Amino acid sequence: MYRKETCGELRLANVGQEVTLAGWVQRVRKMGGLTFVDLRDRYGITQLVFDESDGNAEMCDKANHLGREYVIQAIGVVRERESKNAKNPTGDIEIVVSQLNIISTSEVPPFTIEDNTDGGDDLRMQYRYLDLRRPMVRKNLELRHKLAFEVRRYLDAHNFLEIETPMLIKSTPEGARDFVVPSRMNPGQFYALPQSPQQFKQLLMVAGMDRYFQIVKCFRDEDLRADRQPEFTQIDCEMSFAEQEDVIEMFEGMMKHLFKELKGIEFDKFPRMTWEDAMKYYGSDKPDLRFDMKFVELKNETKGYQIPSVFPEGLFSVFDSVPYVAGINAKGCANYTRKQIDGLTDFVKKSQIGAKGLIWVRKNEDGSVKSSIDKFYAPEVIEGVLNKMEAENGDLILILCGEMRKTQKQLCALRLEMGQQLGFRDPSKFVPLWVIDFPLFEWDDETQRYYATHHPFTMPNPEDIPLLDTDQGKVRSWAYDCVMNGVELGGGSVRIHDSALQQKMLELLGFTDEKAMEQFGCLINAFKYGAPPHAGLAFGLDRVVSMFAEIDSIRDTIAFPKNNSGRDVMIDAPCAIDQAQLDELQIALNLKEE
Amino acid sequence: MYRKETCGELRLANVGQEVTLAGWVQRVRKMGGLTFVDLRDRYGITQLVFDESDGNAEMCDKANHLGREYVIQAIGVVRERESKNAKNPTGDIEIVVSQLNIISTSEVPPFTIEDNTDGGDDLRMQYRYLDLRRPMVRKNLELRHKLAFEVRRYLDAHNFLEIETPMLIKSTPEGARDFVVPSRMNPGQFYALPQSPQQFKQLLMVAGMDRYFQIVKCFRDEDLRADRQPEFTQIDCEMSFAEQEDVIEMFEGMMKHLFKELKGIEFDKFPRMTWEDAMKYYGSDKPDLRFDMKFVELKNETKGYQIPSVFPEGLFSVFDSVPYVAGINAKGCANYTRKQIDGLTDFVKKSQIGAKGLIWVRKNEDGSVKSSIDKFYAPEVIEGVLNKMEAENGDLILILCGEMRKTQKQLCALRLEMGQQLGFRDPSKFVPLWVIDFPLFEWDDETQRYYATHHPFTMPNPEDIPLLDTDQGKVRSWAYDCVMNGVELGGGSVRIHDSALQQKMLELLGFTDEKAMEQFGCLINAFKYGAPPHAGLAFGLDRVVSMFAEIDSIRDTIAFPKNNSGRDVMIDAPCAIDQAQLDELQIALNLKEE
Repeated sequence: MYRKETCGELRLANVGQEVTLAGWVQRVRKMGGLTFVDLRDRYGITQLVFDESDGNAEMCDKANHLGREYVIQAIGVVRERESKNAKNPTGDIEIVVSQLNIISTSEVPPFTIEDNTDGGDDLRMQYRYLDLRRPMVRKNLELRHKLAFEVRRYLDAHNFLEIETPMLIKSTPEGARDFVVPSRMNPGQFYALPQSPQQFKQLLMVAGMDRYFQIVKCFRDEDLRADRQPEFTQIDCEMSFAEQEDVIEMFEGMMKHLFKELKGIEFDKFPRMTWEDAMKYYGSDKPDLRFDMKFVELKNETKGYQIPSVFPEGLFSVFDSVPYVAGINAKGCANYTRKQIDGLTDFVKKSQIGAKGLIWVRKNEDGSVKSSIDKFYAPEVIEGVLNKMEAENGDLILILCGEMRKTQKQLCALRLEMGQQLGFRDPSKFVPLWVIDFPLFEWDDETQRYYATHHPFTMPNPEDIPLLDTDQGKVRSWAYDCVMNGVELGGGSVRIHDSALQQKMLELLGFTDEKAMEQFGCLINAFKYGAPPHAGLAFGLDRVVSMFAEIDSIRDTIAFPKNNSGRDVMIDAPCAIDQAQLDELQIALNLKEE
Repeated sequence: MYRKETCGELRLANVGQEVTLAGWVQRVRKMGGLTFVDLRDRYGITQLVFDESDGNAEMCDKANHLGREYVIQAIGVVRERESKNAKNPTGDIEIVVSQLNIISTSEVPPFTIEDNTDGGDDLRMQYRYLDLRRPMVRKNLELRHKLAFEVRRYLDAHNFLEIETPMLIKSTPEGARDFVVPSRMNPGQFYALPQSPQQFKQLLMVAGMDRYFQIVKCFRDEDLRADRQPEFTQIDCEMSFAEQEDVIEMFEGMMKHLFKELKGIEFDKFPRMTWEDAMKYYGSDKPDLRFDMKFVELKNETKGYQIPSVFPEGLFSVFDSVPYVAGINAKGCANYTRKQIDGLTDFVKKSQIGAKGLIWVRKNEDGSVKSSIDKFYAPEVIEGVLNKMEAENGDLILILCGEMRKTQKQLCALRLEMGQQLGFRDPSKFVPLWVIDFPLFEWDDETQRYYATHHPFTMPNPEDIPLLDTDQGKVRSWAYDCVMNGVELGGGSVRIHDSALQQKMLELLGFTDEKAMEQFGCLINAFKYGAPPHAGLAFGLDRVVSMFAEIDSIRDTIAFPKNNSGRDVMIDAPCAIDQAQLDELQIALNLKEE
């Protein structure tokens, strides 16, 4: 038996007991005839004491020569410390060691095993097995375990069955790019790794499984942005005989359960917002509601919208030439310096945001007004703007203009930046929201056609079905997203369960019958044999964990993440494979010349 | 709201209540003015009644025209049945329907949705979504969910963390064949899908995670035998600072927990048997202990074994020419006819078993003796055999001979066949066993070298380390299998945590330093930074579920299994992919000519 106790459990109540601990040497300090060793395991750190005056010089010498990260076993007696450490749960006691065994030695690690490590990202990833020893990374994985377990507890209690769907499935060229797997037994053919178990979970509903979930790996071969991983994990769910309201209630309940169990936070009913309002007031389908700062439209002549301009025509060609002008009120920011405002202008003009410029109006503490459009408009016009923005003394108004959707996105970025600067985006504050009534279709300028916003199985709002043939862009869907702090944690939809409507949708999305059958034939056929109404959603587990961990990146919620080139630098994957393997698979490399 | 109650919950206590049910039409019976509809969902079957005398002729007509597997909603009042059905939990009541809505119609399903379906295997697999509606298949998936959940509950309570390891890893040509995944972002390079998370779980131990588990998909591109799947699920576990005894105790506890929770069965301590004894007495490393019928050696002159022959030399050349003769006592089978014994002879001579013939000795109820070797040996010799076999009146002795290991396997097959014929292999009886002391190496005749029985990280029994250089075949390992009813449910080992010993093992297995680093470099490096002693094991979830479900095949424990060619005939995967996809991956087909 290597240990009888862990390094996290001993307290004053254990004083006098003989204990056997094992773990890693965090640090060694020699003070006169005493040597202190901090011994670490997953459960905590316990202080070991080696006392030369006890007459075991050899053991003390051994203790003095322990290196960082050596694995040792220590047998000794628990005693009360003279100088206690209130920060450490075991800080009231120490172990007076009588026997020390070195189990494994360690080379000097390439970085310090502490929360504030001296290791850079690349080194940490290369030695991820050492990085994971750092308490903050370890705690994320503990949280992830606990969270996944509580998800399962909640869903099990609500009659959901966790059912594993296959990983080796069929490639569907539509949508994001699949990872494919050559089949040796079926030469020339390939499996695909699932981007989500969407069709399988719908088939499970047709199969009468009633309530399904799965915490499941999914795969997407996309060019990786900062915070994407080629393999990611979903909490994937589906319910039969369920309407939108049933799904929202069930999974709002799940989020509440998680927050209560893991963070001791209780929520009221989550607010809801239509997609249209989310765009109008926050310029985003995932608004961060930890702070207000709603958009106020000063002009909107976009087709289907009629907000008359507060600005007289003919005075400022920029405003005259655009359909949309809107602003936000940065409360209390009238004291922003010229330099700070220039900084904001530079921010919105960055290529990722793409605004042409920033208009500002400052209502000073003394009631005086100054703006970047003073030379174009009379003070009454500016006053009108301030009234519309509900500006008080001390406020700063920031205005953008242009095409509606584009400008809304730019203004959203500016709003979030202001929220950041003003300290409103506290990661320990959590504000949930359901965004509902998503448009069923999204127009793509490049290919000049509509695509499914969610996926081709999403149910149109029955009220809008007549619009399918007349005004596709206006058709709302029964789709919903669970949003928190400006992050989409999950989303889903009511599914079409009627073959005829499904067929119509696929037609509208430009599928020929042949192509539809090739890609979705199994589901289309299944619907012929008594499909129940069903609805579902999926949460991004990595994202949910990072929310609970109060960190921005998902990378440190994953034990062994990949870098932005999709590489695991620790195990060095992907890599070349043997020619024999290629031959068996009956494929060949076909590398493009550089 | 589609339903307020399920089809499994209504009882006499609900009589008089108005209820709303939804589900599938199992069957429709018209009896005079009454129409009975059995409505089915995951939770049960409830009888609906439509009564023409209630005056709603239109609804009754609709009910009479419902097809099998239509999805309907019914609103009505619960009443006590006149003729109750004790076999059905809802059999005391029926619903007098006042409102019937057809939600989805159904074509006539290709087979009946009943436990005793008329659908063959191929049809069932093609329409798996209908097959899953059959109660017996559905119950297997419910069992699988419950079992996996209880595994998690048990391991969570014992401080194990479920940690996801990557699915896109590095190919290791050693061992079984990998499925590989071409990397678009790293042209010419491939990921591999994991055959097991072995290296990652050991890295997690080096990372200080202390106790890890994962219920995880694994992949093996092997030619599929009857009951293998290219993707399968493991309960994968690893513990730090653990010895063999700790692992066995922990996971014996888990199996006991599962049997208690899922089947109400309580076990005493699981027996243990060395691999050597398992081979000696049962000719298998996974003996079926639901019945005894141990092997008795009548001669064993194999190197290292000394069982003197009970047969005098020079009388029967077959026994003279072989090193090993052993038999089993089929108690009470002296009444086997000549035809039955011929059947057994044919059985052992089948090519899969490969024995040359079968010797038998019959001790009849009246004490008289008859055998197939009467003409070679004196009655005293046969009597000696019967004594050694502890034969009583009425017993039948069956004897095989040849090379020891080969003959043990043949005799094992014969023993299992006899167990089957005698009804000893009752699937509802469960007899567990730990097989320990596996040999560290296995000799391969074909390549004339030793391979690791388990894997290269398995710890040799320290007592046998001197034999590593002198008699590899005799080295026992700290490896163990959890066996039940002749099935290996799981297995594992104590791992080497010492770099030097690991290096020696890899040398013995014929790895050059370069090859070892290429394949296991990450783990070898990790061991340089303070590796804790660790040990683990993995259970085959599919196999464990089939044991609990008391079925032979794993296929019906899996929602969407593949056939023996690795095909999913339901979704039709694998399949050809677009040339554009191949081009992006910079690979080409290289099909061999037929």
